[in-house]
Amino acid sequence: MSRLFMFEKPLGMRDTLPGLYETKSIARDAIKSEMKRWGFQFIETPALEYYETVGTASAILDQQLFKLLDSQGHTLVLRPDMTAPIARVAASKLLKEDLPLRLAYSANVYRAQQREGGRPAEFEQIGVECIGDHTISADGEVIALLISSLREVGLPKFQISVGHIGFVQTLFQQILGTEERAQALTKYLYEKNYVGYREHVKNLALSSIDKQRLLDFLKLRGGEEVLSFANDIIENESGREALSQLQQLWEIVVAFGEEDKLKFDLTLISHMSYYTGIVFEVYSHAVGTPIGNGGRYDLLLEKFGKATGATGFALYLDRLIEALGGVSEETPMTCILFSDERRQEAYTVAKERRAIGEKVVLQDINGVKNIDACTNQYTDIVFLIGKAGRGS
Amino acid sequence: MSRLFMFEKPLGMRDTLPGLYETKSIARDAIKSEMKRWGFQFIETPALEYYETVGTASAILDQQLFKLLDSQGHTLVLRPDMTAPIARVAASKLLKEDLPLRLAYSANVYRAQQREGGRPAEFEQIGVECIGDHTISADGEVIALLISSLREVGLPKFQISVGHIGFVQTLFQQILGTEERAQALTKYLYEKNYVGYREHVKNLALSSIDKQRLLDFLKLRGGEEVLSFANDIIENESGREALSQLQQLWEIVVAFGEEDKLKFDLTLISHMSYYTGIVFEVYSHAVGTPIGNGGRYDLLLEKFGKATGATGFALYLDRLIEALGGVSEETPMTCILFSDERRQEAYTVAKERRAIGEKVVLQDINGVKNIDACTNQYTDIVFLIGKAGRGS
Repeated sequence: MSRLFMFEKPLGMRDTLPGLYETKSIARDAIKSEMKRWGFQFIETPALEYYETVGTASAILDQQLFKLLDSQGHTLVLRPDMTAPIARVAASKLLKEDLPLRLAYSANVYRAQQREGGRPAEFEQIGVECIGDHTISADGEVIALLISSLREVGLPKFQISVGHIGFVQTLFQQILGTEERAQALTKYLYEKNYVGYREHVKNLALSSIDKQRLLDFLKLRGGEEVLSFANDIIENESGREALSQLQQLWEIVVAFGEEDKLKFDLTLISHMSYYTGIVFEVYSHAVGTPIGNGGRYDLLLEKFGKATGATGFALYLDRLIEALGGVSEETPMTCILFSDERRQEAYTVAKERRAIGEKVVLQDINGVKNIDACTNQYTDIVFLIGKAGRGS
Repeated sequence: MSRLFMFEKPLGMRDTLPGLYETKSIARDAIKSEMKRWGFQFIETPALEYYETVGTASAILDQQLFKLLDSQGHTLVLRPDMTAPIARVAASKLLKEDLPLRLAYSANVYRAQQREGGRPAEFEQIGVECIGDHTISADGEVIALLISSLREVGLPKFQISVGHIGFVQTLFQQILGTEERAQALTKYLYEKNYVGYREHVKNLALSSIDKQRLLDFLKLRGGEEVLSFANDIIENESGREALSQLQQLWEIVVAFGEEDKLKFDLTLISHMSYYTGIVFEVYSHAVGTPIGNGGRYDLLLEKFGKATGATGFALYLDRLIEALGGVSEETPMTCILFSDERRQEAYTVAKERRAIGEKVVLQDINGVKNIDACTNQYTDIVFLIGKAGRGS
């Protein structure tokens, strides 16, 4: 191969070396254990799916999909998220009895990047989906599980922002009239560009009262009191229904005793177009982007032939590790450096120590060029070299 | 999407449902723990690599590679094995000090299939690579670790067949003279077509003594005694060197106390072309194909600019699960079915039970259409419905 490519990886692709691997394993295991205790069952889906099935159902931009052709000429995609594949599995295999399903996953997802130094093109998500339960109890449950998982993994400070897609849509439709005008304004929320939002509102052909309502909408961030402020600026039934759902959610989270982790942010908009109701993002003070997000998607399952409600969340493991302070310290490791005469003894000592859980490397001294550099890697060295002497 | 594709997955792609997922997790964790106790460190590499780098270094047929183009027009492949990516990481990042490296992985690999009902196109390998150690101690160590891992995972009966690529090559070259003739005969070994092998030998223009040696070669399967029989049919130094390595390996495995798991099979040929020395396969009586394989590959690292020896093995997790008897029993799960009045109580009971390790589903009764079918899924049901009564 050419020297140019010898060590290179494709754009956005990364190696995970032992320290980070171990740190990720420990965090992943803690989260998975908590999800299992809550009765969520893990499944795995293929890395490759048909474009026509999962590619189109996922909410990821087409240019971010890794596409390829199979031997029959069908277009395949590397899964860009896990929600659509899980909806496929649930609809095809698991929803026969029309029972609430609690599924979970930890899997890499793939999103093509267009430039160097950008976001990763392959990254791990750990998440749950509660499918077939339309109640706000299910939304409350996944939020409580999210909080509990982050506590289990040892994240000290985090906050969950909760909004409602239905509330924003109905408010904008009520005031702006057309879908097109609503989308133009929604774009500023998605970008969290509040200055641009205010400029845009000022220039709209609206009554000063309506303009004020759109500006007041931006203030709908905070505790339970936000819901009554919101009630003042909404005038239709579906908007009130959205607020009633958020009120129920608040009470459920209070019943879980987790209300101190929750803030309302009615300006919250997700880039995942399949959300239909309550949506949320989780932030840690240590990381600039959300470490997880989720929400209700009551129309996605219909694409797979089963009209039923669903809600869930995903954590971004890389960002969570960053929030936890990065790579943790490595565990101690012993190296037994032996020569042929004492091979048997070396094996016996290694076996005994491994049996009590120690990590023990067995190294034939003939395989080592630089003894000092070799022994420097380990917390403890046992030399079993030459003929057995006293005290060895 | 069209109904045709709604539930379909690409050729050779599979979903892993909860029972199998859990069974695989338990086996994977047992193996990974043992590998860690032996001082092997886990790493992860990207699913996508440059074709020019890892695609050409791997030993998988071109037609089995999943290929795609990135936005810069470079050809990418889904990794078809883990040995080549790990060689890339070792050479580029880890081998600076020229020390023996012990690396491990558990990862899915991808091999395109051409027809329905064939082999899986995505499957998990768990393996180790000991890089930078030319001694037979390293070969012995990975074989002993393979045995120990299978014992940890609870596989009762298995056997490791050990051969040597150098022995076969040197014997065939010595008798047949040309590379081309040697390859024609090797093909029968690769296919384990011994009838075809004998026919082929009969028709060769060779002395009856040489023909007999090629036929006697097929009998070189069994215990330590095979090595002295082999010595009788080989006539050159490199063949004797191969046998001396196998003799050393035998003594090492005896020192580990694991010789009852080992058989020699000097006719063993791997489909992985990068092997150069000792090679092995592991069989369980319950599965027709090897559940794992490995060997020494002393030339692969050179492709990544670091000439150094290496040896390792990979287990096929699916086949191992089959050998273990398939999906194990699911763990018990409790469901707390509650109504709004007793939500708080339901949450408290769930929290208490989860704290002692029980798996507990919280289910709002309003989210359930068919109560009987719902409760039938669980080993235990707690009803917390209506106003609290006695004894609930």
